[in-house]
Amino acid sequence: MLCVRNIGELVLVSRGPVTGRNMRSVEILTDAAVIIDGELIKWIGSNQKAVPSADAEIIDADGGCVVPGLIDCHTHTIFAETRENEFVKRLEGKSYAQIAEEGGGIRVTVEGVRGASVDRLVETTLPRLQRMMSNGVTCVEIKSGYGLSVEDELKMLRAIKRLGSLTPIELVGTYLAAHTTPRELADSPDEYLDVVLDEKVLSLIREEDLAEFCDVFCEQTAFDIDRSRRVLETCQSFGLIPKLHADQITQMGATVLAGEVGAISADHLETIDNAGLAAMKAAGTIAVLLPACSWFLGVQQAPARRILESDLPVAIATDHNPGSCMVESLPLAMSIACTQMKMTPTEVLIAATANAAAALNRHHRLGSIAPGMQADLLLLDVPNHNRWLYEPGRNCVRGVIKKGKLICGE
Amino acid sequence: MLCVRNIGELVLVSRGPVTGRNMRSVEILTDAAVIIDGELIKWIGSNQKAVPSADAEIIDADGGCVVPGLIDCHTHTIFAETRENEFVKRLEGKSYAQIAEEGGGIRVTVEGVRGASVDRLVETTLPRLQRMMSNGVTCVEIKSGYGLSVEDELKMLRAIKRLGSLTPIELVGTYLAAHTTPRELADSPDEYLDVVLDEKVLSLIREEDLAEFCDVFCEQTAFDIDRSRRVLETCQSFGLIPKLHADQITQMGATVLAGEVGAISADHLETIDNAGLAAMKAAGTIAVLLPACSWFLGVQQAPARRILESDLPVAIATDHNPGSCMVESLPLAMSIACTQMKMTPTEVLIAATANAAAALNRHHRLGSIAPGMQADLLLLDVPNHNRWLYEPGRNCVRGVIKKGKLICGE
Repeated sequence: MLCVRNIGELVLVSRGPVTGRNMRSVEILTDAAVIIDGELIKWIGSNQKAVPSADAEIIDADGGCVVPGLIDCHTHTIFAETRENEFVKRLEGKSYAQIAEEGGGIRVTVEGVRGASVDRLVETTLPRLQRMMSNGVTCVEIKSGYGLSVEDELKMLRAIKRLGSLTPIELVGTYLAAHTTPRELADSPDEYLDVVLDEKVLSLIREEDLAEFCDVFCEQTAFDIDRSRRVLETCQSFGLIPKLHADQITQMGATVLAGEVGAISADHLETIDNAGLAAMKAAGTIAVLLPACSWFLGVQQAPARRILESDLPVAIATDHNPGSCMVESLPLAMSIACTQMKMTPTEVLIAATANAAAALNRHHRLGSIAPGMQADLLLLDVPNHNRWLYEPGRNCVRGVIKKGKLICGE
Repeated sequence: MLCVRNIGELVLVSRGPVTGRNMRSVEILTDAAVIIDGELIKWIGSNQKAVPSADAEIIDADGGCVVPGLIDCHTHTIFAETRENEFVKRLEGKSYAQIAEEGGGIRVTVEGVRGASVDRLVETTLPRLQRMMSNGVTCVEIKSGYGLSVEDELKMLRAIKRLGSLTPIELVGTYLAAHTTPRELADSPDEYLDVVLDEKVLSLIREEDLAEFCDVFCEQTAFDIDRSRRVLETCQSFGLIPKLHADQITQMGATVLAGEVGAISADHLETIDNAGLAAMKAAGTIAVLLPACSWFLGVQQAPARRILESDLPVAIATDHNPGSCMVESLPLAMSIACTQMKMTPTEVLIAATANAAAALNRHHRLGSIAPGMQADLLLLDVPNHNRWLYEPGRNCVRGVIKKGKLICGE
């Protein structure tokens, strides 16, 4: 048994998905305590009334704020090589096309992943996960999509699974073979999909429990609407839950497709239109916004306020990847959502906990603080959650509790 | 004697001020070493040729990158109270005027500072300086300007001086009594200036060595051009070197004034015009840009590329303050300059070292790596400086050497 006492502000956060006006406020207990039994929260209440068992371990929050563990529900954080050279070229004014001509772009990451063993992928990724954890992240979704062959996609998913056994953070695998076409099949997207959507491959992914979700990059430069539908419906028939990269650069109806296939989330949404908002609302699809990506690229953000006003449940994630977003800190992405999308700290906290949990189908267990929920908690060294996001770039996390155990800090 | 060996990339950075095209590249030694004797750099060269004395302490850079210590040349980091409530109100759509009506704004910080002892100011500020240091900052300018009475302005400057004796970081005091008018003299700016520009006050500041620079907020809501000129010329006659908050919100000729009074720097420059660019160029005034401030407020950035193309020496600082910029991490401000101002990592590194040193009149001693310069160095756990700024929000500083001593990390 574990008891966190002397909490200045305990931010409960309702169970996700939370929408619209309900994202503007959270229930807060002041001078509070939490009692944890095993992996679960047993009791929450006032500090004075907390009665832990005699042998309970006591953690003094010292008047600080306690919030649910953060959930990063959209990352590409497994890769072998970084691409800072392209970052420089882009700032020097080169276009994506020029950079690709000079040998840059996603294919660099694909070459790196193809050339790496599972061991090497694990070795390069584990320190990133440790830093994410020290920033308060307790659950991370990681996509494949840099292998672009059956063998290399499976290698990525197996590396994610191995990483899950090496870190206390909960990892969630997503099959994103339909990230782009590989160089060798660049002009034959259907043929490529025949390969990666093969029945044996999808069966194997489920049998080995390598992924819970499938994803597709629905974009002019990647897969069109019909092919995206094929990817999601085929994977869905093998038990993978659909997600989409939707409406990032080109408006081609990807969020409408998200609604039609009943996707659990549609991610990016920089160019979302009214039809997409309506389709997602009807289907209960989570809107996953990636403010650090648009910020890193220096382009227009998704219309967060319009999406919130449409009463969609909004989640926020880092989109950590070596090409378009080398931000691995979810709290920084959350502060970017405040300053650049005009979301309030309360909205972004809900977006990165309860709603991120819903985007990963874990809202019954993760993302809020209540008796019976998994005990994933952050101890902050600031007195309230507004202060946390008001200080971008400062790590305010002094302790991370995962499944009832202190895994970091203190 | 200290020897840093096995440096993967030693980024020398020329002595400041550096301008225009010269900011696009830096001299780099690979597989290098640095030998330090006392407080100064004695030798730089190839790792194989380094011959430290037998008793030299050896630091292994492990193939990492070494850069000059960062210099934050514009901060308001001494204050007692934070203002996260206003941050939230602004995100909820309230105007600055509404927030001021509800009791917010700079006057909250003024009340806090007036009510705080020197001890309290030191106690609240020291942890910020320690975090700045852990992010690689080895020299910080701090402005007064939240006291707004002779007594309270002097208290702030004395607190800065005390802090300087408590941290290995070099602190630089700036007298910014002309930040705004105090509530009690809100309608009598001239009378307020009579008080804070009094001969005895300015003599005392020099006698006690409380400040090297003077500064004024030249803005419609603060001090007009004539009063700003009066502030700077009066302080200058007592040996304080002029700086200005110029062209932030309103274009009223503040950068032209900067040139006319020979200011060492003009800071902000969001609305700078051609006349201002020409005046600054003629006077050799450093352009101090504050990308984290515009980002925090969600407003337009200064036209960095135009300023660079005008051949002005550009410096970058955090502007850390509780109202408009709670970013205390200079590396984050540098990454914001990359992504939002389209400056390259090399340009921002020069801006936060050699040129920031020039903005503080320390370029003969600080901001570059060469024999005879002060040994202020950062050991990074990334192989090159591009990678550092390509990973915003990750602290890549594994060691800080100040005046030849390891003061942080390793």
